[in-house]
Parts: sequence; structure tokens; C-alpha cells
Amino acid sequence: MRQSHLFLPIRREPPKDETFANAQLLLRAGFADKLMAGVFSIFPAGLGVVRNIEGIVRDELQKTGAVELAMPSLQQPKIWEETGRWKTLPPEMFQFKDRADHPIGLAMTHEEVVFDIVRRNIQSFRDLPLKLYQFQTKFRDEPRPKSGLMRGREFLMKDLYSFHATREDLEEYYEEVSQAYDRIFKRCGLKAVRVEAPGGIFTKNPSHEFQVVAEGGEDEIALCKNCDFAKNAELLEKGIKKCPQCSATIVRHISSEVGNIFRFYDKYAKDMNGYVMGPQGENLPIFLASYGIGISRLMATIVEVFHDERGIMWPESVAPFLVHIVQLGDGEVVKKEAQKIYAALQEAGLEVLYDDREKSAGEKFMEADLVGIPWRVVVSAKTVAQGKVEVKKRSEDKAELMTIEELVKRLKK
Amino acid sequence: MRQSHLFLPIRREPPKDETFANAQLLLRAGFADKLMAGVFSIFPAGLGVVRNIEGIVRDELQKTGAVELAMPSLQQPKIWEETGRWKTLPPEMFQFKDRADHPIGLAMTHEEVVFDIVRRNIQSFRDLPLKLYQFQTKFRDEPRPKSGLMRGREFLMKDLYSFHATREDLEEYYEEVSQAYDRIFKRCGLKAVRVEAPGGIFTKNPSHEFQVVAEGGEDEIALCKNCDFAKNAELLEKGIKKCPQCSATIVRHISSEVGNIFRFYDKYAKDMNGYVMGPQGENLPIFLASYGIGISRLMATIVEVFHDERGIMWPESVAPFLVHIVQLGDGEVVKKEAQKIYAALQEAGLEVLYDDREKSAGEKFMEADLVGIPWRVVVSAKTVAQGKVEVKKRSEDKAELMTIEELVKRLKK
Repeated sequence: MRQSHLFLPIRREPPKDETFANAQLLLRAGFADKLMAGVFSIFPAGLGVVRNIEGIVRDELQKTGAVELAMPSLQQPKIWEETGRWKTLPPEMFQFKDRADHPIGLAMTHEEVVFDIVRRNIQSFRDLPLKLYQFQTKFRDEPRPKSGLMRGREFLMKDLYSFHATREDLEEYYEEVSQAYDRIFKRCGLKAVRVEAPGGIFTKNPSHEFQVVAEGGEDEIALCKNCDFAKNAELLEKGIKKCPQCSATIVRHISSEVGNIFRFYDKYAKDMNGYVMGPQGENLPIFLASYGIGISRLMATIVEVFHDERGIMWPESVAPFLVHIVQLGDGEVVKKEAQKIYAALQEAGLEVLYDDREKSAGEKFMEADLVGIPWRVVVSAKTVAQGKVEVKKRSEDKAELMTIEELVKRLKK
Repeated sequence: MRQSHLFLPIRREPPKDETFANAQLLLRAGFADKLMAGVFSIFPAGLGVVRNIEGIVRDELQKTGAVELAMPSLQQPKIWEETGRWKTLPPEMFQFKDRADHPIGLAMTHEEVVFDIVRRNIQSFRDLPLKLYQFQTKFRDEPRPKSGLMRGREFLMKDLYSFHATREDLEEYYEEVSQAYDRIFKRCGLKAVRVEAPGGIFTKNPSHEFQVVAEGGEDEIALCKNCDFAKNAELLEKGIKKCPQCSATIVRHISSEVGNIFRFYDKYAKDMNGYVMGPQGENLPIFLASYGIGISRLMATIVEVFHDERGIMWPESVAPFLVHIVQLGDGEVVKKEAQKIYAALQEAGLEVLYDDREKSAGEKFMEADLVGIPWRVVVSAKTVAQGKVEVKKRSEDKAELMTIEELVKRLKK
């Protein structure tokens, strides 16, 4: 993509009312735009990141046998009254009246909707297990949206729901998804730890959350300096300083909750009368678990973790482009060479952003660092004279001269 | 995809409260589900169709240089008051209060949002033209949602906005998009005609809509039996029966508006104070045009056009799968052969649905016709004995015996 064709409006000034690194950088680098408190547009480069994250999530969920669907946001009270949540979800859940004065709500989660779908459409234990997920815009009436894209009033979620004929089957799949989550966060470049969630509805079989150490997060986790002990700080015994597993020091970190998984067991079967026929013709409750990943929050968390004072440093797996060709000067020779390299890298199947704009070298370098594409390739009169390009990783300081062939070989690794 | 793994709940009974073919068939065949009047879930097979349509639209828009972004649904009055639409869009536009008692709206179109983005982010005529589009869930408080997925209260739209420094550039791109629309509808298997839109805001340079003759549509167009004359019936002179171009008979048809394109020229520049600096340092208004395609309506229209009394007949370009392998009986030999063919077709890069369920031949055939995958491949004891499979197109009656190699060759055409 030529940078002059991509809508990537880079802004000099940090946004005044957004103090967190993720919002500061995503807005300055032209990845997102703020419409109102907690409500953002995602610009083309940001959408590229979102699509890459979605691709990773989809890939790992499909491996567990989950299939994708799309459920609506608009809700009426009926099914939510079966669980009592029409009353308990507000004020976080937007609720209002339509033109006929009927109550309408905007879904912030879909357990009721998907459970209603499943109970109406399956009859037998043979139809289970069933694993359904969606990527969907959720709405949440946050009192004071802050932390940029970490917690919006409108945000993108992946929500997965699994249905089982037995408690054992649910437990097994719960662990399978937990492992899929490990792979997802790892592929996004993040070290996520699974910890028990505070305030779960079942203390014996708690829910879990996946936390990533990140400034700009809203949670706090305690990690052992020595072993793999990890706990949500809210659940930590008061005054404790030594790891209960190995006696090493425990350190508290600000963290971001990028995923969570819940076991509802037969709660929804009971609340919403959802049963299937078992092998002996008996009624079996449909067991439910649900699994969330905040896609826009994940993007924000990645920025919180991967940035320096100059800008974002996207991990290759989620970067909107792998390579940023920076053409210095607009002499015919340089331009021609830059276009040749642009074509060659695209030919090699690589995602390339080509800075073809008329700007000074200083501005271009500053902006390339801000935007944070993993590999920067400089084409200038000097590099052309040497028959090479100057290659630098965003995460490293050292630049290297190499031929296009060497570059392609390096990038295809 | 094995049919036993796909969530494709086929329902015997037509839904009682949905009378249009698109809703009847999409609901019965397990492509969609109704949550409330005008609000639907899209099940996995339906999402496959939506993704294919999106792919075609994206492909054709990218060719025109448009780039994709994502704008939010939640709105506050400020920018909408600049054009007066905060007052004029309701009651179709949902408006309500948030927990802090501030007014909130759900966007049903995005001219104000995108124009605000652009005016804040570009300075010079050199930054134009700019072409931005999104696929987005829109909300519309319809008084009496009917016609199934043709007109919902929540629906998927593609909306494109183009920004220009001159009127001429706008006109040129307007025609370019119009031609892209022609290609999009053609690739979806539809014959769409472009007609002048009634009630446009500029009668001298009217807006246009793309209409497809389809039962279940909400519009009416007049077509000449002989030439290419086409007109929205609302704009037809009263009592006219002969074509003004060739004097042949004009026939009225029920039709579905699958796309529309609007030229706003400098209206938004004036209303929202959107100017850029011109070549001589003068202020130039930013010219705006917008272009919509109802993605869920397009899917519904395709069903209205492509179905018979037995079910849907998806065009190959949008079908969720190209081939439906129907395994009859569950003897080991048949099962093994069906699995072999399933693997071979997937290996060949084809999208395959494999009916591996234990059902009678009659049920399987009935359901395959309802679901409407373009090619049906039967594997039974009889076909295995002959070393062949029985191949039938959904749109034809004649079945044919052929080897797997012949089948792959036929499908790859």
C-alpha cells in the first residue's frame, strides 16, 4: 500500500484528554480517532491490526471445533428476564424505548441470546457439544471511560459459548480453550498468565482471567520473582510478601485483563429451561461455559507493552504491514528504485507500506518510528549508488545494508 | 466442513410470522434466526454467504482506491446538529440517554462522522481525493419491520464516502463507483439496473439506486420489454404504457433496492465548515458523495431471486460451500469412500460441506435442496460399486455419474 493512498493521518500533538500510552500512540500514529469519551473510530492501519488479531483468534478457535456466527445487539427483555439480568445489568447495559415505547437494550454479552438459540434448535444429547463464537461490537455504558481503547463504551469482543451434555465434557473443553488462549496471546507477542478471577459466581470452580503485565491496565496481579505463582492482587492474602509456593518475593504489577473464561454449568439450563434428551430418554441440562477476548483491548494492550519513547513497535504477527519502505528524496532514480523494491516485496507475498510522500528525511524517520512497522527499508540516492537498501528493525538500533534478494530472504524467514 | 460440526439447524416448519421467501428459506435452512421483529442472528452458513458478498464488495472497491476503516455506532448530538439531522433523522434514528443523562444516538449512516474525521485530518487539496468505506451494523427504528432480512432494525451495510477537491473529480469517481456496483451485483449473480432515485435532494443531479427485480422487494421499477429503459415506478409519468425510448411496452416489476449512491457536492462543506487549502492558498470546499450497499439485504435479495419450491439455489460466487457431499447409509465402505472424496475435494482447494449425519436418503436430499449448495455429490453403496460419484447441480435436474478426477476437473472450471 502506498502511504499516500492509505488514510494514515499522523498527528504532531498528543491528544490532550487521553493520558494512556495506547490512546496517545494509536491516535497520534493515525491508527484510531476519538469521537467521544470511550468511543473510537479505527482507521485503516488500525483495522489491519484488528484483522490480524481476529485471524489469530479465529484460527485457534477453529482448531477447537468452534464455528462462527453473528448475533444481534438489539435486545428485548423477554429472555433476559429469565435470568434476571434485564434488571441487574444496567446501568452498564444501555436500555431505552423504541418508537412504539417498547423496551430495547444493547447487548454487552450474549449468554441469554445464544442459550435461547441453542435450546430452540437442539433436541438430543447427540447434538452436543456445540461451540459457537462471534466477533461483535459490544456496548457498555461506562461511567468514566478512560484508559483509551482499554475500556470503551463501544468495543470489539470475541465471545465464545460452549454447550455440553455433561459437566466433565465442559471441564475438558474449558481447559482446551484455556490452552487455545495461551497460544493466542503468545502469537500476539504477549505473556499472559491465567489467574483465578475475583468475585466469581462459583467459588468452588472459579472463573479465570488472562492478565498481561502492562501499564495502562486496570488490574493488578502478583507474580513470584522465582516460580510461576500468579494471583489477582485482589485475591492475595493481606500483607503477604513471600510466594506460598517457593518463598521467593512476590511483586505486584499493573496488568490488563485480555481474556476471561466462565463456567456456568447448569445455571442457564435451570434459569432458561434448557434441556436435551439423554441416552435413556431422560432430561439432561445443557451445560454452558463462555469465553471472552477483548479484541480492541488486546490491540491497546499490545501498544502498552510494545512501545518506546519514539512510538509503537508492533510484533510481526499483528503488524498491519511487515515492511515500511521509506523513500528519501523524489529524484527519478530513487523513485524508480523504491517502486522496484515495492513491487519485488509484494511479489514475494509480503505486506508492504511504501512511504512515497514528499517529506523531509527527518519527518519520515520520525513518523516511521511512531507508526512502528517491524522492518524499515530506506531507499535513498546513497543506497541506490551502492546497489543496496538500508534495513533496520524497529526494535533494534543497528541498520544494515543488503541487496533486495538478501532482504527478501531475511523477511521470509 | 462436516455437517455434524456446522451449526446448521434445519427446521421443518416455515416460520409463522415471516411470509417472505427470503426469511422463510433462510430461517428454515438454518442460515439465520429471528430474535425479534426485524432483528436476526446470522448462523454459520449464513455468515459464509455474508463473508463472500463482503469479499466481492471489498475487492471491487479496493480497485477504485478506496480504503477500509471502522466507525462507531454510538453518537452524541454535536456533529449531527451541524447538519440538522439530529432532529430530522428520528424516529428512524434511535436516540436515548446514557447514565449521565447525556443524549446518545445509534448511527444509521455516517456522513457526519466521516466528514468530521476528514475535515479534522486533512489540510490541503493534495490530500484529496479520499475514499473511505466500512462494513458496519446499522440500526434503524423501523415502525413495522417486515420482508424478512430485506429491511431489518439491525442490518449490515457497506458504506463508502468519497471526498474531492472539485466537482468534476466527484462526478468522475461517482461513475467509477457506479461501474464497480455493476460488477459487484453481476458477480453476485444479479441483474441490477441503475435508476434515478425519487425524492433526491438535488433534482438537477439526482441520486441513483440499483434495483433488482425480486419478489419480496419493497420498490417498483418500470422496465421496457425491448430496450434498456428503466425507471423507478414512482418517477414514471402517470398513465404511461409505452417506452419513451422505443415505444415498446413498459412492464412494472416488484424490485429490491440493493444499492444507492448520493452526490452531496459541497453541502457538507457548507454545513460543517469543511475546507482545504487550494493551489493558490484559497479555501476549497470538500466535495462529498456517499455510496451504500445493504449486505444483509443483498443476501435476502439473492434468495428471493434464486430459489424454487424446494429451497435456495445459491450462485457459486456467494454460496457458503461449492459442493455438498451427501453420504447415503453409514456402512464402513460408503463412509470411507465419502471421507476420501471429502479429503480429495478439500485438497483441491474447494469449499465442501460433507453431510455425515445419520438420516434417511429422503431427508438428506430434501435438506440438501433446501440448503441450496450449487453442486450435490452423492456417495452410496451403488456409486461406490461403480467407482464413481453421482453429481447434480442444484439448478438442474439431471444427475451424472463421474469419477472423482472428472468431478474435480469440472468444479475447477
